[in-house]
Amino acid sequence: MTLGTIFLSELVGTAMLILLGAGVVANTALNKSKGQNTGFLFVNFGWGFAVFCGVLVSARSGGHLNPAVTIGVASSGAAEFVPGIPVNFASICTYIGAQMIGAILGAFLAYLAYKKQFDATEDGPTKLGVFSTAPEVRSTGWNIVTEAIGTFVLVFVVLAFGRWNGAETAGSLGALGALAVAFLVFVIGTGLGGPTGYAINPARDLGPRIAHALIPMKNKGSNDWGYSWIPVVGPIIGGVLAGLLSTPLLGAIG
Amino acid sequence: MTLGTIFLSELVGTAMLILLGAGVVANTALNKSKGQNTGFLFVNFGWGFAVFCGVLVSARSGGHLNPAVTIGVASSGAAEFVPGIPVNFASICTYIGAQMIGAILGAFLAYLAYKKQFDATEDGPTKLGVFSTAPEVRSTGWNIVTEAIGTFVLVFVVLAFGRWNGAETAGSLGALGALAVAFLVFVIGTGLGGPTGYAINPARDLGPRIAHALIPMKNKGSNDWGYSWIPVVGPIIGGVLAGLLSTPLLGAIG
Amino acid sequence: MTLGTIFLSELVGTAMLILLGAGVVANTALNKSKGQNTGFLFVNFGWGFAVFCGVLVSARSGGHLNPAVTIGVASSGAAEFVPGIPVNFASICTYIGAQMIGAILGAFLAYLAYKKQFDATEDGPTKLGVFSTAPEVRSTGWNIVTEAIGTFVLVFVVLAFGRWNGAETAGSLGALGALAVAFLVFVIGTGLGGPTGYAINPARDLGPRIAHALIPMKNKGSNDWGYSWIPVVGPIIGGVLAGLLSTPLLGAIG
Amino acid sequence: MTLGTIFLSELVGTAMLILLGAGVVANTALNKSKGQNTGFLFVNFGWGFAVFCGVLVSARSGGHLNPAVTIGVASSGAAEFVPGIPVNFASICTYIGAQMIGAILGAFLAYLAYKKQFDATEDGPTKLGVFSTAPEVRSTGWNIVTEAIGTFVLVFVVLAFGRWNGAETAGSLGALGALAVAFLVFVIGTGLGGPTGYAINPARDLGPRIAHALIPMKNKGSNDWGYSWIPVVGPIIGGVLAGLLSTPLLGAIG
Repeated sequence: MTLGTIFLSELVGTAMLILLGAGVVANTALNKSKGQNTGFLFVNFGWGFAVFCGVLVSARSGGHLNPAVTIGVASSGAAEFVPGIPVNFASICTYIGAQMIGAILGAFLAYLAYKKQFDATEDGPTKLGVFSTAPEVRSTGWNIVTEAIGTFVLVFVVLAFGRWNGAETAGSLGALGALAVAFLVFVIGTGLGGPTGYAINPARDLGPRIAHALIPMKNKGSNDWGYSWIPVVGPIIGGVLAGLLSTPLLGAIG
Repeated sequence: MTLGTIFLSELVGTAMLILLGAGVVANTALNKSKGQNTGFLFVNFGWGFAVFCGVLVSARSGGHLNPAVTIGVASSGAAEFVPGIPVNFASICTYIGAQMIGAILGAFLAYLAYKKQFDATEDGPTKLGVFSTAPEVRSTGWNIVTEAIGTFVLVFVVLAFGRWNGAETAGSLGALGALAVAFLVFVIGTGLGGPTGYAINPARDLGPRIAHALIPMKNKGSNDWGYSWIPVVGPIIGGVLAGLLSTPLLGAIG
Repeated sequence: MTLGTIFLSELVGTAMLILLGAGVVANTALNKSKGQNTGFLFVNFGWGFAVFCGVLVSARSGGHLNPAVTIGVASSGAAEFVPGIPVNFASICTYIGAQMIGAILGAFLAYLAYKKQFDATEDGPTKLGVFSTAPEVRSTGWNIVTEAIGTFVLVFVVLAFGRWNGAETAGSLGALGALAVAFLVFVIGTGLGGPTGYAINPARDLGPRIAHALIPMKNKGSNDWGYSWIPVVGPIIGGVLAGLLSTPLLGAIG
Repeated sequence: MTLGTIFLSELVGTAMLILLGAGVVANTALNKSKGQNTGFLFVNFGWGFAVFCGVLVSARSGGHLNPAVTIGVASSGAAEFVPGIPVNFASICTYIGAQMIGAILGAFLAYLAYKKQFDATEDGPTKLGVFSTAPEVRSTGWNIVTEAIGTFVLVFVVLAFGRWNGAETAGSLGALGALAVAFLVFVIGTGLGGPTGYAINPARDLGPRIAHALIPMKNKGSNDWGYSWIPVVGPIIGGVLAGLLSTPLLGAIG
């Protein structure tokens, strides 16, 4: 496998993730949508199985879809991301670059699918909320804590799953591994999504925020750049901690 | 396997799909039903696992149940639908014909199951809504875009799943493949169902609409033929695009 | 395996099914319960995964838990229920007898678990509703049609699943088969449960109704014996039809 | 494997369970949370898949996470918890000690994730409810009955699952076993959670209650020590009964 394949795979997978994930928020939040006001359980299921689809279409590259996963796997001491792709600066940049571009693309596709619903919605923050997360209570420190804990759970459980189910080689996860990750993201939403909306993924938050900034839109509100670094830094902290603690807490691989 | 077996299999599977899928809408939309007003998440689960059952009973033919899937698989360059059934004009027509007839039959069975609930419901569009989709905001162009994107996701993820989990041969999907497709349709509903009600399947929309036209019913409203071509054309566009892009984006099979 | 093992297995499995299934209705319907008014999707999930647990604890006998399944399998032309247990009058009676006794026992256990909630609930029909089904619109003919269609789906999909996933031998279903049956019962509830509350199982309805008649209870209302035969006859009709049509529609086994 | 590994594994798994399980209650119960008032189905899913994650990260030790499971497995007559770890006083104490400490730690982490939401919530019992269970109707006897029945179901189904799916050896459960246990806990919640909130686990209730007592918190209410022994005694009774009845009702292992 080449870095080009990794790039394409992660780009497609992350676009799929954001298309369906931004979509479920659009569905419940925007006017003139059949799912309006369906609520938080609906959003949790939607994001969980958005990951399911994203992982299924990017199985070749391991279905990271998330810089915090890529960095977390790297910090766990793994030698390769997938067979033939060593963990190094070039491969990490390839993963993260593809994830960012895929996230922007997926957000744009979600906008197209809900074009008339965006048109029918006045409120700026509601529209931004389809793209990016915002905390219920703003607090730099505590928002970072919440995002770091949520991402720790994500990366730590993924690394545990990989240890005992062979998930760290490309394609070997199969449908069952994708299903496990779907339920993992689902439960991070139900359990830890209340304070900040569980970005738990720098690309998932920053990519669509950039898309929001780029797309011409009626009644567009702020991009809330002031908050934008928190769903980047918090998840990276959580992912690195999960990687570093994986061998001490879960035992050595193999 | 013969084309006759394909025909019977797809007819039975699509009837099962529509019986349970139209049923969940009837359950939440009609008067005097225990599930009245349960909402959109309920509908998403109902349609998702309607597909689960449809696929389980039509595993012999690959469980397409959807002309957009059949056409999408064909446009992906696959040589056979299932072992012994080459992709050609006769087999494509067999799949689609069976899907259309099965959809009409399934809609009729759903009507029988909810006969007293249809009798208890005055509103014509509500009754039509059990059979066919309608957009929240009418817009030929954007409705087609939404349906095309939703169907692209369906066919593209199915083709990805098949690549890495052997789904393209009859019966090999098994329960896990059927479960994966169920969650796939579920998440297309949560993520992309808001604007148009996610027909994402020409047979799913047109077949029941024909059934609605044929069934004598108290207070029957319009069949809304003016919209009927959109959930045919949009899904076909999406399915063909998914087929054509599958090898460039997912890599060659095998 | 002996008929005694079959009897014990089906009794335990059906008791588990009814304990959890009656329990979810109690949870949403009775006063002073944490799940009060959670609604129909909640009930559908509860019954679906009640079957999951029932099947897991009765895997030795194939996890029928339902006379309509037993009779449906028999009418499909199967030679054995599980290896060593031929389909004959004695084995059929063993299955059904165990299912009936297990259902009564399970209903009694559900009553014990919700004793204080039953005490806190005045309305008789609400209490009966924890035990047995009642239609939204009473109509002997159409209620039978709805129950027959629902049970047809249950038995037909089970027979299809068994054909392609080896489910007809004891224990071979494993967790994945139990999961499939859970989602099957779930979707019968979402899709076909609106008119009559989907008994789709004579033991599930009549057993708890007998328990309701036997248990001394404050403010106990009618046992509604007038309706009691419909959730027996309708499911048997549906199960037999599914058995008879399984080979014509699904192809011969093996 | 050593007792130290068991200890670490159960501690990490139980912390994960409580973090996500207390988290879902915080999400729906506390002010300024995105999931506020999402309801009981949400809570059931949240706890079910909290167990999923807990089991995945503690597969090495069998993923008990619950003294009632450990005691139940011991009373079933099993010789080893996992290969190399015999059932004896030392190993039982290791499991239970780790579960208790893990539960306290997990509750503390959940508090950190929801710090600002706890700050924004006035009501003391609401805050305690994030940590520990409370019955809807207080009744020592009936509350014990409900908790014992719920825990019986948990341990009994786990032992049945292990009999036919090889779950009693470390790591062999894999994702499918973890998924089965998730749905098992989910359905115990839907079916039997109404009266007492389904502690069904002494560590799950007492550990977080101790954390609640220890954490300095604005407007902190009572720790409700008077009820605290019931979710310990009830589950142990249920677990022991399930263990003792497993061989008579399910047949001998192997």
